[in-house]
Amino acid sequence: MTQYYEDLAVGDTFETGGYTITKDEIVEFAEQFDPQPFHIDEEAAKESMFGELVASGLHTLCLSVRLFVTEIVNGEVDLANMGGLGMDDLRWHQPVRPGDTLRVRAEVLEKTPSTSRSDRGYVEFQRTVFTDGDDEVMSIRSHNIVRRADAGN
Amino acid sequence: MTQYYEDLAVGDTFETGGYTITKDEIVEFAEQFDPQPFHIDEEAAKESMFGELVASGLHTLCLSVRLFVTEIVNGEVDLANMGGLGMDDLRWHQPVRPGDTLRVRAEVLEKTPSTSRSDRGYVEFQRTVFTDGDDEVMSIRSHNIVRRADAGN
Repeated sequence: MTQYYEDLAVGDTFETGGYTITKDEIVEFAEQFDPQPFHIDEEAAKESMFGELVASGLHTLCLSVRLFVTEIVNGEVDLANMGGLGMDDLRWHQPVRPGDTLRVRAEVLEKTPSTSRSDRGYVEFQRTVFTDGDDEVMSIRSHNIVRRADAGN
Repeated sequence: MTQYYEDLAVGDTFETGGYTITKDEIVEFAEQFDPQPFHIDEEAAKESMFGELVASGLHTLCLSVRLFVTEIVNGEVDLANMGGLGMDDLRWHQPVRPGDTLRVRAEVLEKTPSTSRSDRGYVEFQRTVFTDGDDEVMSIRSHNIVRRADAGN
């Protein structure tokens, strides 16, 4: 059943399943969007501050959005998401390596009704990305626009 | 010539060339990372708050990083970038549509030497994404780790 703005409460927490990232994917993504040596070249990565090939932080962000959208917005939660305003406090806490399995926890931090549009409200989510070992690898706050059930259409 | 931490000054501004986004690319990216109706389905997008198919904001961010890395980090500027700590204040000001040409302006906002590692410093960039018509479509601040020239190796 669709969850509208009114259905969400501060503290509500959703968690996704896992997504395992491969070395080929890491290289392919980075060649397209972030072609730095430590993301695309195993030998060069050994000389970097990471000491090995690691995923682009942007790739980790993209996979976290994929998990959020496919499993929370489009999935079991079926969130009436209308779009996004922006994101704050993106931090990469640890590198993501080939074979790591990522999952996302999203918690409702704050709800603010729109003052100008009666059909929507703003929902701030704290989204945290974990690996299998429960290590926190990334965190971010997102500002989503969520449809109200009582607004009609 | 490589630009190290010491070579950058607050106020230094770099600008990239343009990248034109296509409808096929918008749909392909969104199917992979952000499969919401207004990014993947022209008919459904008409019913959305955008009224038409628009690029995922995450796609705009990825293309802005591609331009920053290929033309600033790997390109003419040849920035001695070691990695990233995070990003703040990501805002999408206007939707990006098929056929829009994006370019990035990056300005050095702040420099902070590392207190624990003599080989590096932290550089904060204000990155702004514009379309051809000079409309600002996205902005973000990035925290980069940049190698010092005088640290030896």
